Amino acid sequence: MRTKVDCLPCILRQAIRAARAALKISEGDLESHEHTIRAIVNRVSMLIPGMDLSKTPPEVAAEVYDLVSYMTGVKDPYAEVKEEHIRKALELYDKINDIVSNSDDKLRMAIKVAIIGNAIDLGAISDNVEVSEILSELYKGNWSFSEEAFETFKANLEEGNTVLYIADNAGETVFDRPLLELIRDMGKKVRYAVRSFSIVNDATKEDALRSGIPEELIIETGSKFAGVVLRDCSEKFRRLFRNADLIIAKGQGNFETLSNEEGPIFFLLKAKCSPVATALGVPLGTLVFKTSPKFSRRKISLKG
Amino acid sequence: MRTKVDCLPCILRQAIRAARAALKISEGDLESHEHTIRAIVNRVSMLIPGMDLSKTPPEVAAEVYDLVSYMTGVKDPYAEVKEEHIRKALELYDKINDIVSNSDDKLRMAIKVAIIGNAIDLGAISDNVEVSEILSELYKGNWSFSEEAFETFKANLEEGNTVLYIADNAGETVFDRPLLELIRDMGKKVRYAVRSFSIVNDATKEDALRSGIPEELIIETGSKFAGVVLRDCSEKFRRLFRNADLIIAKGQGNFETLSNEEGPIFFLLKAKCSPVATALGVPLGTLVFKTSPKFSRRKISLKG
Repeated sequence: MRTKVDCLPCILRQAIRAARAALKISEGDLESHEHTIRAIVNRVSMLIPGMDLSKTPPEVAAEVYDLVSYMTGVKDPYAEVKEEHIRKALELYDKINDIVSNSDDKLRMAIKVAIIGNAIDLGAISDNVEVSEILSELYKGNWSFSEEAFETFKANLEEGNTVLYIADNAGETVFDRPLLELIRDMGKKVRYAVRSFSIVNDATKEDALRSGIPEELIIETGSKFAGVVLRDCSEKFRRLFRNADLIIAKGQGNFETLSNEEGPIFFLLKAKCSPVATALGVPLGTLVFKTSPKFSRRKISLKG
Repeated sequence: MRTKVDCLPCILRQAIRAARAALKISEGDLESHEHTIRAIVNRVSMLIPGMDLSKTPPEVAAEVYDLVSYMTGVKDPYAEVKEEHIRKALELYDKINDIVSNSDDKLRMAIKVAIIGNAIDLGAISDNVEVSEILSELYKGNWSFSEEAFETFKANLEEGNTVLYIADNAGETVFDRPLLELIRDMGKKVRYAVRSFSIVNDATKEDALRSGIPEELIIETGSKFAGVVLRDCSEKFRRLFRNADLIIAKGQGNFETLSNEEGPIFFLLKAKCSPVATALGVPLGTLVFKTSPKFSRRKISLKG
């Protein structure tokens, strides 16, 4: 999905938010370090006319996050927030696990749990995520859960051997565990892919480990973007991507960067902004499970 | 209230929204006339570094709305939307009127009805206002209704003679009628002030007339801003403002421009963005009734 003009004010807003996080300014304090934040806003504003809308939003936003880091001197503005989100999500882990274990349809419930975790996102316009309140989305959320996608997902999982699970945000990582464990317990070779560098609140290897993801499952994309820009990814990741029987892509950044890629891709996300909701054809705030627009089942490799 | 850095991405977003309204692009269509909208975004982005944050947000935003009109060739981008909002609000008028008439405390209810009408706003970030659903805010909304302000309001109204009612948005104007009529029925000299020029979806004289406000009550501020910037207002309006025993200021734009002015000012609004909510000390989305931070009761002129 390419960048829309609507993404430009959002990217400017993200710069302010990231700068405040970097400078440890508490939420609701709109005045501290105003000079620095204004300087960042001015610099980003001057970048806007040169931004290339044919690129995906994570590619366009990357230089803005770089600028915020450069101008605040803080490499990972959301480091503390990410830790807090993981900690709060871990407090919910037993509950999440029980919900899935006690469900009549564990796979479906594990997918839904993974999707509600995507409400934790500091890029898209969804302020004040209360991690503790996310569980209510399971029952009260607006769902667009494709039964056709679910049937295909089960078939690919049944017949296939390798699964690539592409993570999105720190904290959300905890909500990914039941689905990840279910797939592993089926004897599949599953890899959990995280970003190689800190960008927005996307999960890195350290975040995944902190969330309780087993180390042997974790791989890195090799990329600096808040999404999967294949040409920027490592050869190792690209090989996994090309050979997977099933690809689970979590969140907006992965949707934005992968919606034009072919493969057995399933998108699991909450649509948190108009450009993404429009691309998905759902109302804002919808919890979505669907196959990729360019879904291709591929030749399924034989198990074992 | 001066402009915050947070207002800058919001103003950029407003430019896109106004441009789409001017070009009659339906909501959810993020692609039509992209070239024109991108050109507007680029021009606004280049204006941002020069924007003076010591001014109020309506003053800063004015040049952006001018730019949108200039670049689209459409003087009043929200003309049609304003008409639609008035039409839909008029459909609710009998219901609104009944709610106030049947209330044990008509004045309080009329104030609350006037406040919920402020949910109709195309400047602040509150997309997809469903006028027909606004009434539910009366009971389900998050209220910050100051009882102290209400006592002062009643005293000023009882003892005073002249009331200045400063309108905000088209459509909201219909929700202002019960309070306006109640004050007039008390024998007070009340004037309903609207903008002299079309700006955002703010009510003009034409909009007030369409909403059923009696012509003899309507005056214009003389100003081009989406708020009351006194030095830009007509001498006639300023005289009314300086001599009123009671000033009712509706909405964010009037709060932003009048929060530093002295006088018997009461703010009736829904806090729809962080800078305004923070200035008011309430959570986002709160329905607010309060006196001005610089409230002064003034010498009350004797009736008659």
